[in-house]
Amino acid sequence: MNFNVAVIKGDGIGPEIVEQAVRVLDAAAEKSGHKFTYKQILMGGASIDVYGKPLTEETLETAGNSDAVLMGSIGGNTTTSPWYRLPAELRPEAGLLALRKGLGLFANIRPAYLYEELKKACPLRDEIIGDGFDMVIMRELTGGLYFGERSTDVVDGIRVAKDSLTYNENEIRRIAVKAFDIARKRKKHVISVDKANVLDSSRLWRQVVEEVAEDYDDVTYEHMLVDNCAMQLVNDPKQFDVILTENMFGDILSDEASMITGSIGMLSSASLGEGKFGLYEPSHGSAPDIAGKDIANPIATVLSAAMMLRYSFDLDAEADMIEKAVKKVLEDGYRTVDIMSDGMIQVGTKAMGDLIIERI
Amino acid sequence: MNFNVAVIKGDGIGPEIVEQAVRVLDAAAEKSGHKFTYKQILMGGASIDVYGKPLTEETLETAGNSDAVLMGSIGGNTTTSPWYRLPAELRPEAGLLALRKGLGLFANIRPAYLYEELKKACPLRDEIIGDGFDMVIMRELTGGLYFGERSTDVVDGIRVAKDSLTYNENEIRRIAVKAFDIARKRKKHVISVDKANVLDSSRLWRQVVEEVAEDYDDVTYEHMLVDNCAMQLVNDPKQFDVILTENMFGDILSDEASMITGSIGMLSSASLGEGKFGLYEPSHGSAPDIAGKDIANPIATVLSAAMMLRYSFDLDAEADMIEKAVKKVLEDGYRTVDIMSDGMIQVGTKAMGDLIIERI
Ligand SMILES: CC(C)[C@H](C(=O)O)[C@@H](O)C(=O)O
Ligand SMILES: CC(C)[C@H](C(=O)O)[C@@H](O)C(=O)O
Repeated sequence: MNFNVAVIKGDGIGPEIVEQAVRVLDAAAEKSGHKFTYKQILMGGASIDVYGKPLTEETLETAGNSDAVLMGSIGGNTTTSPWYRLPAELRPEAGLLALRKGLGLFANIRPAYLYEELKKACPLRDEIIGDGFDMVIMRELTGGLYFGERSTDVVDGIRVAKDSLTYNENEIRRIAVKAFDIARKRKKHVISVDKANVLDSSRLWRQVVEEVAEDYDDVTYEHMLVDNCAMQLVNDPKQFDVILTENMFGDILSDEASMITGSIGMLSSASLGEGKFGLYEPSHGSAPDIAGKDIANPIATVLSAAMMLRYSFDLDAEADMIEKAVKKVLEDGYRTVDIMSDGMIQVGTKAMGDLIIERI
Repeated sequence: MNFNVAVIKGDGIGPEIVEQAVRVLDAAAEKSGHKFTYKQILMGGASIDVYGKPLTEETLETAGNSDAVLMGSIGGNTTTSPWYRLPAELRPEAGLLALRKGLGLFANIRPAYLYEELKKACPLRDEIIGDGFDMVIMRELTGGLYFGERSTDVVDGIRVAKDSLTYNENEIRRIAVKAFDIARKRKKHVISVDKANVLDSSRLWRQVVEEVAEDYDDVTYEHMLVDNCAMQLVNDPKQFDVILTENMFGDILSDEASMITGSIGMLSSASLGEGKFGLYEPSHGSAPDIAGKDIANPIATVLSAAMMLRYSFDLDAEADMIEKAVKKVLEDGYRTVDIMSDGMIQVGTKAMGDLIIERI
């Protein structure tokens, strides 16, 4: 079959890691007789440079007409962004937000697990890691503070800025259903995270989650306050199977969860809506400081491509093929610098792509 | 001199740890010739039980007329709160929020540092800890999502809940000034945390912080996005000196920061306004599961009392006395169960109080 993939190279290390993921996809296509056709689209900073805005109508349309979107890292996550003085609609991140919303991608799935081979890269002590941990963060992606009304005004000579956080029961229900569905295929445990002791939106969140839970007798669940969850991730990550939470909390907690694995360069993510269509991107940021040096780890993007095969194209065998190739490369001792340790063989971005392709 | 201290015992382990702090204060008073007079006041769950609401007018007045408030842990931070179905004004946490607001305590100061003696309790690896870390989180405490308008409605048959996040430049300026002032007495570095790539309130936050920074030539500063900060705390805590942030981010990040020290039972906190008046409480939660068992660690509350002497009463010598006594007890090998390790002597809550008093 032929699948159309819209490709957003992104900022910083984005282009070089996406390049490897595309090469790996093509290798898998060759093996299996499928074909992937790519269309480059521009978003964020790259789109501002060319079109003067972070996302054009045509780009959104092209993305929506494709079978899935593969994206490199975007934005200035790790450094001070020079964009923050611009009006909201001109900031590069506005492109990403408009894309998520425009494509109806309300469910952001971010797995965070410990790679046995990379245990020593984990910042947590062996006693805390125990036999390892393996969780999925299910973050609501098109509601809450990110998409509320906002304004900056001068009232009586004083600058005042306002954001708002709204959720309705339908928005909460559909993401909760996804979380319980995923839990069913895993260890059957959901921890729903909120701040119900303060926020009205969190109280509604809790109620709707309890209603959804009634349909899942086989899945246990509990509520956890967001501040406590930020502690528990560091203190006892083994307790988590599926974490279900709203947009802003999910942003913070999923980054914390990625970091405690010690291998953020290895973690993929998917953003899904109601159907098969999805957007796939690495969990890590655009790391502008190491861009263009052929040292970035392409594995998170390669594994995101594998997720795309599995979730959007139903190509499970091909996804397995890629995941196994990655595992084999690690077993054979190859590492990019971010996951390098004693006795291993250090390789660059492109070489890592080659090594994965050789094993497909 | 005579100082009037309003005392809120709080929930869970609150009463037993506050009791030890009061005994330690009295021991310090005896040595120094000062006198502390205590007035018990009720707040949160305890106040609901007696008065039917979490904070009464009289309690707020009594607190405001005292020289400082000493508080045990309150709320159901570590367990699912059965209160979340109640209207906001009836939840125990509403008492704490009304108290903070009513007393004008806009600056929450939470130190998070590694105790050399307790290094092994830290969940982070030795390589990450390095020579140790020592930071202060300065959290804005009376603005943002916690105090915005909120509502829960049914619109066209669908439940909708809304919270709002507002900051004006004066609210941001006064907390930023406190953060830069504290940095000046420390390692002279401020990291201001926001989500300026998405929120209008964060953009204003960033601008005002930059304006304030202009008056502090001797203090360096940078901006960091909240998701990145949640990662950096785990990955490289040594980089932080003073973290300055808004209410909700501060709630999450300060709990994460406490946890990475591995000794949350040791960390004190202060909430201050413009003057000398302050509210002092441990950083940890109310741990209802171990309440009444004489095993809770009273040191965080004892050190909060020492902070009270220093910040509200200008009794630096007496504060030193208490802090040194705590240090001596640790050096002598005594530990409560939460910080216990091989070869140390395990003691209970009251015994720990005795040991500190003996060394004063
Ligand atoms: C770039 C930014 C808007 C984005 C977000 O906060 O959603 C990023 O941090 C992420 O987590 O995907
Ligand atoms: C009890 C709760 C309202 C409170 C807060 O979130 O402010 C607590 O978590 C804290 O950090 O002091």
